[in-house]
Amino acid sequence: MVENIVIIGCGAAGATAAMQARKNNRKINITIFNSEPYSQYSRCGLPYTISGKVKAFDDLILMPPESWSGLKIDAHFDTTVSSIDYDAKTVMYDGPSGSGSIEYSSLIFATGARNADPPIKGLDKKRVYGLRTLDDAKALAAEVGKIKNLVVVGGGLVGMETAEAFHEKGVNVTVVEFLPHVLLAMVDPDMAKIVEEHCRDHGLTILGNTAAQEILGGETPTGVLVKSRETNEETEIPADAVVVATGVRSITDLAESIGVEIGTTRGIKVNDRMMTNLSDVYAVGDCAEHVEFITRKPMAGGLGTIAVRQARVAGINASGGDATFPGIVGAKVTKLFGLEIASTGFTDDMATRLEVPIVKGSIKGSSKPPYYIGGKDLKVKTFFDKETGKLVGGQLVGIEDAAMRINVITLGIQHGITAVDLFDFENCYAPAICDTWDPLVQSADAARRRLKM
Amino acid sequence: MVENIVIIGCGAAGATAAMQARKNNRKINITIFNSEPYSQYSRCGLPYTISGKVKAFDDLILMPPESWSGLKIDAHFDTTVSSIDYDAKTVMYDGPSGSGSIEYSSLIFATGARNADPPIKGLDKKRVYGLRTLDDAKALAAEVGKIKNLVVVGGGLVGMETAEAFHEKGVNVTVVEFLPHVLLAMVDPDMAKIVEEHCRDHGLTILGNTAAQEILGGETPTGVLVKSRETNEETEIPADAVVVATGVRSITDLAESIGVEIGTTRGIKVNDRMMTNLSDVYAVGDCAEHVEFITRKPMAGGLGTIAVRQARVAGINASGGDATFPGIVGAKVTKLFGLEIASTGFTDDMATRLEVPIVKGSIKGSSKPPYYIGGKDLKVKTFFDKETGKLVGGQLVGIEDAAMRINVITLGIQHGITAVDLFDFENCYAPAICDTWDPLVQSADAARRRLKM
Repeated sequence: MVENIVIIGCGAAGATAAMQARKNNRKINITIFNSEPYSQYSRCGLPYTISGKVKAFDDLILMPPESWSGLKIDAHFDTTVSSIDYDAKTVMYDGPSGSGSIEYSSLIFATGARNADPPIKGLDKKRVYGLRTLDDAKALAAEVGKIKNLVVVGGGLVGMETAEAFHEKGVNVTVVEFLPHVLLAMVDPDMAKIVEEHCRDHGLTILGNTAAQEILGGETPTGVLVKSRETNEETEIPADAVVVATGVRSITDLAESIGVEIGTTRGIKVNDRMMTNLSDVYAVGDCAEHVEFITRKPMAGGLGTIAVRQARVAGINASGGDATFPGIVGAKVTKLFGLEIASTGFTDDMATRLEVPIVKGSIKGSSKPPYYIGGKDLKVKTFFDKETGKLVGGQLVGIEDAAMRINVITLGIQHGITAVDLFDFENCYAPAICDTWDPLVQSADAARRRLKM
Repeated sequence: MVENIVIIGCGAAGATAAMQARKNNRKINITIFNSEPYSQYSRCGLPYTISGKVKAFDDLILMPPESWSGLKIDAHFDTTVSSIDYDAKTVMYDGPSGSGSIEYSSLIFATGARNADPPIKGLDKKRVYGLRTLDDAKALAAEVGKIKNLVVVGGGLVGMETAEAFHEKGVNVTVVEFLPHVLLAMVDPDMAKIVEEHCRDHGLTILGNTAAQEILGGETPTGVLVKSRETNEETEIPADAVVVATGVRSITDLAESIGVEIGTTRGIKVNDRMMTNLSDVYAVGDCAEHVEFITRKPMAGGLGTIAVRQARVAGINASGGDATFPGIVGAKVTKLFGLEIASTGFTDDMATRLEVPIVKGSIKGSSKPPYYIGGKDLKVKTFFDKETGKLVGGQLVGIEDAAMRINVITLGIQHGITAVDLFDFENCYAPAICDTWDPLVQSADAARRRLKM
């Protein structure tokens, strides 16, 4: 009989696990620890505090600190879990009101991830930032109006969203990306090029295939020394501040200390019930490694959607219920300077790495019928397993209705539909909305012919 | 061996059937007749020629008349098929260059539908219009700038889109709807009320539960006499012109003349290959009756999406191939004064008529997370079969991203997903796009709890 659930971490994952455990079980004791001084906030919303699209930092707080007591959940902020005694099933913590310990019958790791520092000299200067926590965002947002030139190292989602935000506030922004293009963890190079062109048209400087070598200056940056990976030429880019956004690494030290197994992606390995190799220990969100939906190969989530869904499952199981997580499709989306970029399932590169031969349907369509004013270009790609014809991925880029269309592909992947099924999809149609054969259906048609289905 | 395909009708259905037959078979002879003087045009685009959102009538012509010869398809415009000799497999026609006859080995009815005249006095006056053909649209659009007051009889899709168009051109528009609310063939009353409130806020007058009795005036209208079905009170609404949009009826006379079976919806009854009771005769689009996807009960399509999908199937089969049409889900969408209205599968009323007990998930959500600026209200309803928990319908109304979300529901219906499956749906998420638990997922959650799944 479970009596005490202890949850380490109060991001989207930890907070959701706590709330779901309470929903599932009114009697159980629930304690949640957050090393940050805040209650649950939206991490993905952080870049938008810079541009003002999120008006106040407090708006990001999704769970006001005082609301936990109403749920009879004991929440400790600014409190670090210092160690765990697995034999005694006890967690030791350090907080503003001193140290303490608490017994658990079920333990949930929702420890998240930390920024991975790249091999760049001068990272210890002031005005060199990451953007992972609310405090990071507060420090960064305070630079608006003070800096003229910003270099963002890393053109992933966080890097690009931060670059957009500072650009919108009048800062000259240069994005330095080690890979040939930005967002390559999300989209194929041809799609990334469309995104780059759009961002450049809006005034962003993007340097692909470029390694940041050193942050130059004294106490604070004056520039970033970068090296072209094509020409080996070194250049100095002026910078009053630098944002480093080169990816994250799961936080697993506490888990490792009690013998929890770590997976190949460096996340905490869990089964479909979000349980680790220890039967009373769970892990959810950015610190956990579950599996990719189609191949069932190890995959870290690294997404808010995955975090809350895994956390719901762990919260139910840890409180005596029974739920399973179906695997990670990995739907990703963002909007940059009005351009929607969406992807789900495999990218071309990912299919190669997972050794799944694919057939593509690639279409340059429009968001509206040709006869109706205002339609916008819509680049659509869908990927299908060459053997089975099953949908395994898709990408969309466009000013209008790109993001929402990715949802159709994700649902299709989750239910094993084929190119013929997607071709037979009865999309909605109206002149003011979209055409009779949706671009998604057109792309399935192209693939279906190639697959001879 | 099929040698000659004759297609009667050159709307979306007829034209698609012709093109698909040609794609499938390069050698076959194909002849297509259109009683209108035009090649294929978009019927759904007609209301937008009034507002100018379709800039020119010619923009609606999707298949230029001269392009048929390139496909080696013999196209006759302004040409009526006067009779068919089924024993001799010969079609008789009357056109600008006189009468003629042609033999067929396969015949496809794509004769569409005509406006159903309601029992209203004075329909024979000038300036009383339907909106079914390009000529109708030309006549109607010519009224812009001439009329001050317009009454639209019938608040279905065509009526509402026409009302919006004239209102945008500065005309006082009153919509008279016999049923309690507009768009009830598409959405439930609670959704229709949101639409009506939005349209009224934009200046449209809508009279629900009101019967148009008589079009008053001399040669042209001066007003419309209407009677409240609640109070029996009669009122005269000033009108310089009247649009009658009270639904359509399948055109089946030619088909009936050769013994083709007509179904309970008054459309031409077809099987999954779009074949009628006569093995060499097909019917597609608005003149055809296939089945509702879930219950397999008779249903007329009456939608452009259905017409082209059925036509593709008939075109392939008539030219010696083999294809099947999966049934009509009935996804419908429109946009009125910026408000997107979308529905698919069963409405509440339709579920009752089809005798399928349902459980609903109803949510008032937002298009974006609460902390991000500019999110718009999104009313979402999903319907599930009470016995099986399977998704059977859904509706969305909202200023932003309502229409595209209906596609997820339609695909879900087509693949038999349950409330739990939709709850497990991994929607895309980003602050600028939508929240971690999409309103669709929230609505599935509400239904899932009610279903105890």
